[in-house]
Amino acid sequence: MAFMLLNRLTTRSGRRDDVFRNLIESGKRFDDNSACLLYFVAESTEAEDEIWVVDLWTSEAVHAAALEDPALQPYIAETTPLLEGMPQQIPVRARGGKGLPDG
Amino acid sequence: MAFMLLNRLTTRSGRRDDVFRNLIESGKRFDDNSACLLYFVAESTEAEDEIWVVDLWTSEAVHAAALEDPALQPYIAETTPLLEGMPQQIPVRARGGKGLPDG
Repeated sequence: MAFMLLNRLTTRSGRRDDVFRNLIESGKRFDDNSACLLYFVAESTEAEDEIWVVDLWTSEAVHAAALEDPALQPYIAETTPLLEGMPQQIPVRARGGKGLPDG
Repeated sequence: MAFMLLNRLTTRSGRRDDVFRNLIESGKRFDDNSACLLYFVAESTEAEDEIWVVDLWTSEAVHAAALEDPALQPYIAETTPLLEGMPQQIPVRARGGKGLPDG
């Protein structure tokens, strides 16, 4: 069963672009990982310091394993202090719709 | 610029499956609408009565127009009383990632 995660990040004032750069750059690690079906990085158009990451993986376990990738750790270490608090993670399970990849 | 919307719906107790059925059935109207790039219907795995809809459109205007489709109105009328309050809509703009369709 595919595992989808909605992540809401609040950045420190004025650091949104820095966080974007890290999220998009580090996410390139997932480009060649077939277990990562989708990884969207988006900005709220209403809340200035709010970022949403929507990602879809073939399972929760492969997602957890991907985050252990040593190459990701410098990005995580650099990004965490740019956030207000910890990301809010909302795990969801896709039930249907249009455009969902198989996995 | 593509327009993405994250929608958080809270259903009345025990009505989540009814709401799912309506969301997935009514969403079939978007299958042949090339302006609708993605439409995911997902359930929270932590909050029993919470549904998330993630949709991506080529523009905010075409999304608004799609919701005016007369064929959708019976679904909206049937679903609204099954919800606790109004859906929370979070408009976002995709900045990058993996698997985003062009539009």
